[in-house]
Amino acid sequence: MAVTLEKLSEQLHAQLRGDPQCVVDRAEPLATATAGSVTFLANAKYQSHLSKTQASAVILRADDVDQCPTNALIVSNPELAFSQVLNLLYPAPILSPGIHAGAIIGKQCQIDPTATIEAHCVIEDGVRIGAQTVVGAGSVIGSHSQIGAHCRFYSRVTVYHRVNIGNQVIIHSGAVIGADGFGLAHDGQQWVKIPQVGGVEIGDDVEIGANTTIDRGALQNTVIGQGVKIDNLVQIAHNVKIGDHTAIAGCVGIAGSAEIGRHCMIGGGACINGHIKITDGVILTGTSVVAQSIEEPGVYSSGLAVQKNSVWRRNVLRFYQLDDLAKRLRRLEQQVNQIPSPSQGEG
Amino acid sequence: MAVTLEKLSEQLHAQLRGDPQCVVDRAEPLATATAGSVTFLANAKYQSHLSKTQASAVILRADDVDQCPTNALIVSNPELAFSQVLNLLYPAPILSPGIHAGAIIGKQCQIDPTATIEAHCVIEDGVRIGAQTVVGAGSVIGSHSQIGAHCRFYSRVTVYHRVNIGNQVIIHSGAVIGADGFGLAHDGQQWVKIPQVGGVEIGDDVEIGANTTIDRGALQNTVIGQGVKIDNLVQIAHNVKIGDHTAIAGCVGIAGSAEIGRHCMIGGGACINGHIKITDGVILTGTSVVAQSIEEPGVYSSGLAVQKNSVWRRNVLRFYQLDDLAKRLRRLEQQVNQIPSPSQGEG
Amino acid sequence: MAVTLEKLSEQLHAQLRGDPQCVVDRAEPLATATAGSVTFLANAKYQSHLSKTQASAVILRADDVDQCPTNALIVSNPELAFSQVLNLLYPAPILSPGIHAGAIIGKQCQIDPTATIEAHCVIEDGVRIGAQTVVGAGSVIGSHSQIGAHCRFYSRVTVYHRVNIGNQVIIHSGAVIGADGFGLAHDGQQWVKIPQVGGVEIGDDVEIGANTTIDRGALQNTVIGQGVKIDNLVQIAHNVKIGDHTAIAGCVGIAGSAEIGRHCMIGGGACINGHIKITDGVILTGTSVVAQSIEEPGVYSSGLAVQKNSVWRRNVLRFYQLDDLAKRLRRLEQQVNQIPSPSQGEG
Repeated sequence: MAVTLEKLSEQLHAQLRGDPQCVVDRAEPLATATAGSVTFLANAKYQSHLSKTQASAVILRADDVDQCPTNALIVSNPELAFSQVLNLLYPAPILSPGIHAGAIIGKQCQIDPTATIEAHCVIEDGVRIGAQTVVGAGSVIGSHSQIGAHCRFYSRVTVYHRVNIGNQVIIHSGAVIGADGFGLAHDGQQWVKIPQVGGVEIGDDVEIGANTTIDRGALQNTVIGQGVKIDNLVQIAHNVKIGDHTAIAGCVGIAGSAEIGRHCMIGGGACINGHIKITDGVILTGTSVVAQSIEEPGVYSSGLAVQKNSVWRRNVLRFYQLDDLAKRLRRLEQQVNQIPSPSQGEG
Repeated sequence: MAVTLEKLSEQLHAQLRGDPQCVVDRAEPLATATAGSVTFLANAKYQSHLSKTQASAVILRADDVDQCPTNALIVSNPELAFSQVLNLLYPAPILSPGIHAGAIIGKQCQIDPTATIEAHCVIEDGVRIGAQTVVGAGSVIGSHSQIGAHCRFYSRVTVYHRVNIGNQVIIHSGAVIGADGFGLAHDGQQWVKIPQVGGVEIGDDVEIGANTTIDRGALQNTVIGQGVKIDNLVQIAHNVKIGDHTAIAGCVGIAGSAEIGRHCMIGGGACINGHIKITDGVILTGTSVVAQSIEEPGVYSSGLAVQKNSVWRRNVLRFYQLDDLAKRLRRLEQQVNQIPSPSQGEG
Repeated sequence: MAVTLEKLSEQLHAQLRGDPQCVVDRAEPLATATAGSVTFLANAKYQSHLSKTQASAVILRADDVDQCPTNALIVSNPELAFSQVLNLLYPAPILSPGIHAGAIIGKQCQIDPTATIEAHCVIEDGVRIGAQTVVGAGSVIGSHSQIGAHCRFYSRVTVYHRVNIGNQVIIHSGAVIGADGFGLAHDGQQWVKIPQVGGVEIGDDVEIGANTTIDRGALQNTVIGQGVKIDNLVQIAHNVKIGDHTAIAGCVGIAGSAEIGRHCMIGGGACINGHIKITDGVILTGTSVVAQSIEEPGVYSSGLAVQKNSVWRRNVLRFYQLDDLAKRLRRLEQQVNQIPSPSQGEG
């Protein structure tokens, strides 16, 4: 879609410096933008590209406007403004509502007439689906689950039975919501399955990435708070609770009954132990391992990044001796402290 | 379902202390249980909740009965007994057997008349499916695969061709059994695929989590022993052998040709190298990395848990210098040992 | 399929030592091979099995032929030759081309008449699919995506809209190509989705494992180069670029905008940070964590392998004190250096 900068500046409540009649019809990255495109500068790392950009307009902060060689849209949060521009330039395709002839619908379902159920879906008995919600091709919604309005499930999503999902929830392809938690009792000889009779509760405005899995609770619900954003291939075990507006990057694993606070950021590949509690406002950098509860907000990290294999091998070997090294250091300190100091020696 | 404590105590072979005619109709956690529910106490961590529980009955060990303010069902393994209670109170829905009209069935299949094949399944040629087995909606069973009796596959399971699966096997949604192993030869310029002509063999009473992947063998079978329990998003590569009754938590990766013993417990996020052997009875705590064979049973661990980022940064820096630190310590020891001891100095 | 060694040696351009009329009809591992089978020896680790093998023929290097007790096919790259033998002995089943009656095909699609579209597929509007390509049961191909010739998609693959896939590409079951990248702006209170308007571009001869996810770019394309091989449960985030002929083992996570060079090998479970660059020819061993760019080819590693839990606990504790230990060592060095040396003391 094409739009004038005048229109854009109105929509974004941005201050326009330049030609209001200039038209842009696409978004491109700062460094490679071409005439006719709009771009943005949010991260100082990319600032060096600003003076050479070929974009027709740049969304940026007032501080950066002097370096801008073209039309500028001045806002306080360029990334946020840019996301609004993208929605404008690339409107989501409008799907014609209705239930595809190839979908299977159970008994006593309540599917809003404005909802879309795509081909090869299976909607089991007693399911409720809200207005404007789209259930992608090949998805399966288990019996008595409830899905709010304005949700977008892409193809091949599985929602097990008795799962409650809020409004404006996006679920990507292959995600599985409500499979059994990994609950086992040992009878002395073998593992016996503990039936998982809880459910899953997902708040409004949640996004769940491709092939992510969120298990149902053992007795009570697994709970994903409002506005939580979850990337791909994340595992959330039974009884976990995730606080509102927490973001979880790809490949994270969260073990059973862990509680994560509100407004946390969990970096990619992090692993969080079960039965622990992480307070609000905690940031975990990528590949963090959390073994115990975190009671203070702040940035936490663990793990070691790569070194050349030859160097790393030597350091690892020393790590395996670390307790011994520390003890030798202690002994040496004691030994040295028994040596008369030079002044004493001289005295 | 509602049941009297008299009935429960019979089923569990439990000693009942309290009112045999008391009725319970649901299970709840000890801390939040309400009247009409049954709960249990297995983990000492939760013992403080016992004296205040509102449950109508608690399943517990004889040692804990004195603290119990309500009816008590005394058993030796409360968690195990509780799993039986759950099966009783929450019976699995009975599915009407048969093949859904929307399923596609290949030639020369042998599908037991008591089996259920749900909508949109594809059962390829020559597949055998045993009595009472349920294949969930949208699942695909590859040609000449065999599936035992009393299995439960949830929706959207893929089983490739020539895979053999035992009885009472549960497979959760999105799991993929029998995809090609990652077998590549290098011709000096590029990777050439090595056809994977082995299969997969899965024993009785196995459970496989959502979106878990188990590859077929290169030449022989990948083997999952009897009673093995596997959580979500686990990767099991070609030619791996998992011994009977081993449990594997979420996000574990096991590389090609690794052999895991019987009765092992693999913590979440663990990574196990290829071509190694782990003996019976090994416990790996979460995020363990196993590079070499483990020949002795016991508990093994690796990895570092989070610290505040500011502290961690300093320690990591030191790790990178660890070999150097160790050498400096050695030098210092030599230096100090050449210093005459105080007594010598005095002599 | 059965074949004479004469025929095999011709196909492999191998030198045959033994009976040209000997027939083999299957491939088996060196250690367990039986009469009638062909096997190979590539890895010195398995050499001890050679002298006792029961195979009818062994593919090996000239250096090993003297130890071979049976017919030998001598080549320079036995693993590569063996992959050719497997293709010969186990030809892929020939599928009858055409569109299954149960598949849903959108408007203005161009599907080559020699392509196979299996049951329950959904092919959205404007999709192009090349000659001989097979799209497995239950797969969904998003609107205006293009798929080359001779591709093999197994069942339940999702390709989102506007994804371009080359020729001879294999995609395993459950893989999701082109889901939204994890792009979020924060408005001070909550996360706002940044629409992901880029696509995905996948070169020729790529293989993608089961349940692997490759996100679409934010503005431009995520790019997977020619001949790249990707194992199961790998996460590739938006805007990532993977150079030609790079191989990525299972459970790897690659964060947004990372660029990986050509001919790299990424070990299982590795995590690669976003916005960094890894040069050509880098080998990362399993579970490597890459936080910063790597500019020099070579082997890189990180992480610690398991120790007995009791030993590991002590070493971890010391790691947490590592900065302190290093400072104590420094102090001690200074202290010791102020002690007069023995000769000085004696002087």
